[in-house]
Amino acid sequence: MKYCVIFGAQSYEHEISIVSAITLKDVLHRDLSFIFCDQHRDFYLIDPSKMKSKLFSSGDYKKESKLFLKEGGFYQKSFMKEKKVEFDILINLVHGGDGEDGKFASLFTFFGIPFIGPSLEASVLSFNKLYTKWYAKERGIKTLSYELLQKGSYDISIPFPVIIKPLRLGSSIGVSIISEQSELEYALDVAYEFDDEVLVEPFIDGVKEYNLAGCKGDDYIFSIVEEPHKEKFLDFDKKYLDFSRTKQVLQADIDESVVEKLKENFIKIYENSFEGALIRCDFFIIDNEIYLNEINPIPGSYANYLFEDFSSVIDELSKHLKTEKTISIGYDYIHNIQKAKGK
Amino acid sequence: MKYCVIFGAQSYEHEISIVSAITLKDVLHRDLSFIFCDQHRDFYLIDPSKMKSKLFSSGDYKKESKLFLKEGGFYQKSFMKEKKVEFDILINLVHGGDGEDGKFASLFTFFGIPFIGPSLEASVLSFNKLYTKWYAKERGIKTLSYELLQKGSYDISIPFPVIIKPLRLGSSIGVSIISEQSELEYALDVAYEFDDEVLVEPFIDGVKEYNLAGCKGDDYIFSIVEEPHKEKFLDFDKKYLDFSRTKQVLQADIDESVVEKLKENFIKIYENSFEGALIRCDFFIIDNEIYLNEINPIPGSYANYLFEDFSSVIDELSKHLKTEKTISIGYDYIHNIQKAKGK
Repeated sequence: MKYCVIFGAQSYEHEISIVSAITLKDVLHRDLSFIFCDQHRDFYLIDPSKMKSKLFSSGDYKKESKLFLKEGGFYQKSFMKEKKVEFDILINLVHGGDGEDGKFASLFTFFGIPFIGPSLEASVLSFNKLYTKWYAKERGIKTLSYELLQKGSYDISIPFPVIIKPLRLGSSIGVSIISEQSELEYALDVAYEFDDEVLVEPFIDGVKEYNLAGCKGDDYIFSIVEEPHKEKFLDFDKKYLDFSRTKQVLQADIDESVVEKLKENFIKIYENSFEGALIRCDFFIIDNEIYLNEINPIPGSYANYLFEDFSSVIDELSKHLKTEKTISIGYDYIHNIQKAKGK
Repeated sequence: MKYCVIFGAQSYEHEISIVSAITLKDVLHRDLSFIFCDQHRDFYLIDPSKMKSKLFSSGDYKKESKLFLKEGGFYQKSFMKEKKVEFDILINLVHGGDGEDGKFASLFTFFGIPFIGPSLEASVLSFNKLYTKWYAKERGIKTLSYELLQKGSYDISIPFPVIIKPLRLGSSIGVSIISEQSELEYALDVAYEFDDEVLVEPFIDGVKEYNLAGCKGDDYIFSIVEEPHKEKFLDFDKKYLDFSRTKQVLQADIDESVVEKLKENFIKIYENSFEGALIRCDFFIIDNEIYLNEINPIPGSYANYLFEDFSSVIDELSKHLKTEKTISIGYDYIHNIQKAKGK
């Protein structure tokens, strides 16, 4: 199986996608190729041996082979010919905009390219934190209470401390925790820089947080449960380092019964929606009840550090990708109308 | 202002999109060009004078100029050159899959093509009837009670009569109204042909139904309120004819206060979500309360027959399209890491 990793793109998380891709190169022990989508959305084929962060930050990637996207895949132009980039499955590794908002899923589905990553609908569900709440509720999983603010609004009624998040970003970008009114306006302005809509939730200091990654192969495959280390919460700088992790971490020190409960909740979220993706669900446990904090449908370097045999997990997922049903169009209605008109 | 209408695509509503486009040619009195997306998702530039249904049903469209999509628009290849199809704004007229499910919005946004039609997120909200209910609730608008069934399930608890709908289609495709248990399995199987998930709602015979179309220009622009004629409900054949309507219909015979209430509810739905689109909201009135039935984000031939001066409405909408903020990527984090590593 030959995989191609696509990363970068027009996203606030462009740089962590680069780090994530470099990391994946080290941990996914398979035949790999790499496609970089730059901030202008031009595609380049990157020689695996050149996968260093400097290639991208220096702009030197522009010397690599430019690609274009069309039916069936990515192509290089050479003289009068077009040469297809050969791979079996594309791995969507674009965090944030383009990759997690549904655009890449749309492009790859439209152009018939098999890919690992959330579907169009699953992307939108997990990218918009409000939709995630609606979805969790439908599936019988609690989430924190919230208020949704539109750009220009500064009134909240949730008591301090609160956590303020741009509605549609990941990786803690634009997120603030504030404990008093005097900090509110600035924190909201920061969040409004990234989104016209902002979500406010109560901030629960010391809340128990557990991350569980997984996917559906023949059966569900789960990672270990991780209790993320945090100082109040992970800011972007710290999370950034998170995307380059390659060593397996230890299972959180929790009862097996809790692990089982987390897995049950993971399945409730994944089933009939996230097939084809390897996702990480971030849960809270409050008063012995499980809450969904967020769904990360393209976790940093695919959360490789939570799995014992990461490469095999990707192989098994590859055999169970989501495919779109092709509709055959027979023009029956138009023929009938033409007949009725005597044409 | 030069418009280009894109229609067809890999959709159960492919044929009605063709009818819709032919109709639009007659009612949108502006400089127009046409791009046909065939069922294989190949694009063709269609000479306006050739816009007849037979061109498509016969396959003759394949003799027209083939196009490809890339940054900035659609291009023709001629000898060694590429020639861009010139237009100011693309009008998304693909009903159902590809057009209304978010794929086209993704493609046009990704490749920087200004378009009239629902955004990616708005598409997903209106395409999935369950998400529409969640959304309406958040905006304070009632919808009918429901049950969601997964393929293979045949048990419902809503009392008969019920209406059965594939979760993600429009135009009454796969929809049945059934009044007794003996009809249930067949009706569900029909719906499962089109979607793995099916929505069941109570069917209210004789319910008052009102359609209101509109968009946001400098201010909200509304159509007249239409009371659709129906025999029980419009099936696909009858709705099909609906897509070719060109004559303005009459305002429903209702109080001005009801019209105002419908407009208020329309704004609740449109605001901060459907900007850039001309949508039609289909409402029920039950016991003097307004219910949202569905949001049609690309109504047949853009519901031209509900507006007095349709072409001007499109012109005004064009001045208020939704645009994506461009992120400038400076590689600060990667530079910092490189510095820290002394590289």
